[in-house]
Amino acid sequence: MRLADLSERSGVSLATVKYYLREGLLPPGRRINATQAEYGESHLRRLRLVRAMIQVGGIPVATVREVLAHVDDESLGLTLRLGAALWSLPQTAQEAPAGPEAADDPSHVAARALVDELLGRLDWTTAREVGDLAPAHRALVATLATLHRLGYPLDSDDLLPYARTMEQAAVHDLDRMDLLPEPQERAEYAVASAVLFEPVLLNLRRLAQSEESHRRYGL
Amino acid sequence: MRLADLSERSGVSLATVKYYLREGLLPPGRRINATQAEYGESHLRRLRLVRAMIQVGGIPVATVREVLAHVDDESLGLTLRLGAALWSLPQTAQEAPAGPEAADDPSHVAARALVDELLGRLDWTTAREVGDLAPAHRALVATLATLHRLGYPLDSDDLLPYARTMEQAAVHDLDRMDLLPEPQERAEYAVASAVLFEPVLLNLRRLAQSEESHRRYGL
Repeated sequence: MRLADLSERSGVSLATVKYYLREGLLPPGRRINATQAEYGESHLRRLRLVRAMIQVGGIPVATVREVLAHVDDESLGLTLRLGAALWSLPQTAQEAPAGPEAADDPSHVAARALVDELLGRLDWTTAREVGDLAPAHRALVATLATLHRLGYPLDSDDLLPYARTMEQAAVHDLDRMDLLPEPQERAEYAVASAVLFEPVLLNLRRLAQSEESHRRYGL
Repeated sequence: MRLADLSERSGVSLATVKYYLREGLLPPGRRINATQAEYGESHLRRLRLVRAMIQVGGIPVATVREVLAHVDDESLGLTLRLGAALWSLPQTAQEAPAGPEAADDPSHVAARALVDELLGRLDWTTAREVGDLAPAHRALVATLATLHRLGYPLDSDDLLPYARTMEQAAVHDLDRMDLLPEPQERAEYAVASAVLFEPVLLNLRRLAQSEESHRRYGL
């Protein structure tokens, strides 16, 4: 399809599509003459993803470019490709301070030990091996350290049921992703699901809390 | 305890404690003479919650004041009290456009029908009755409408397993809350858990995805 059709089918204005092309967020089309290029379904899919990240996720253009570079990195196996793409997304909490000051902070030390114990009990061997190389690991430690510091300490008994439910959610996530044929489509889906699905989960959680509260205590 | 002890035990600077008192985020202490007041454990607890909302949640002072007014509203039953407090927290996604334009938007209409079907299948009767009076309901509809518009349509089969896992999480949430003796403490705990626990859940989800991906596809 031509640029105008790409704009029409995606509902993204021509000016915005051209901006995404200029910024390298959308790969160039196949040139068919001096002034025109041809775009395919993969462009339409990519355009939807870029719009989701920018408009819904509020993610800066430079970060979108970095995420997409990982999505397109065919040198990596799927787990690393997904991991690298997800890890370059903005994190949900400040990361832990790196270096010696973190090692000295008792809340941080306690949180690291707690995460390690939790991952051992869950038998999440990869997460345990990768450890704080993973931004989600660092962010989890940082959040638990903050909770500890603020006087809301948690132990691994508290966390285990939540981790188990997230494990089940991950199985559903990957079942859905498995329906897609290409590794690139799968990586795109994983990114879209991280950006767009987190608000769905959090709102379902609030509704579920309200429902359960009503069951226990009435109104 | 005196103001200086409250500051020391909470780790919040004296200037900040005084600021919270002035802004009405912390109730005044019991006056013991012209220049001094006495503060109790409930002040310490409230101070931790205020700091968590402002420092971790990045929640504006005016919103914190509104949330706390609901936490302290003894005229409400516990479910409504928790609901009102949680609903005045900043939402995780833009709310749906209200009024006639939403009724005309096909993605919005589809999303409303989807949420209604989902709540029916879950047998979440309260959430269904309260409907879009609940901000979490409106935010869920808005997010699903956006997903639909961006070409990531979901159906109730997709959502059901996530909702079931959030239902289990809500049971754990309320089991923990039930350990607290006073309705006010419970409402404070619910707020702290919404603000501080959401990043824990989302980071656990990312770690679980990575783990499951490694199980299925290797690295």
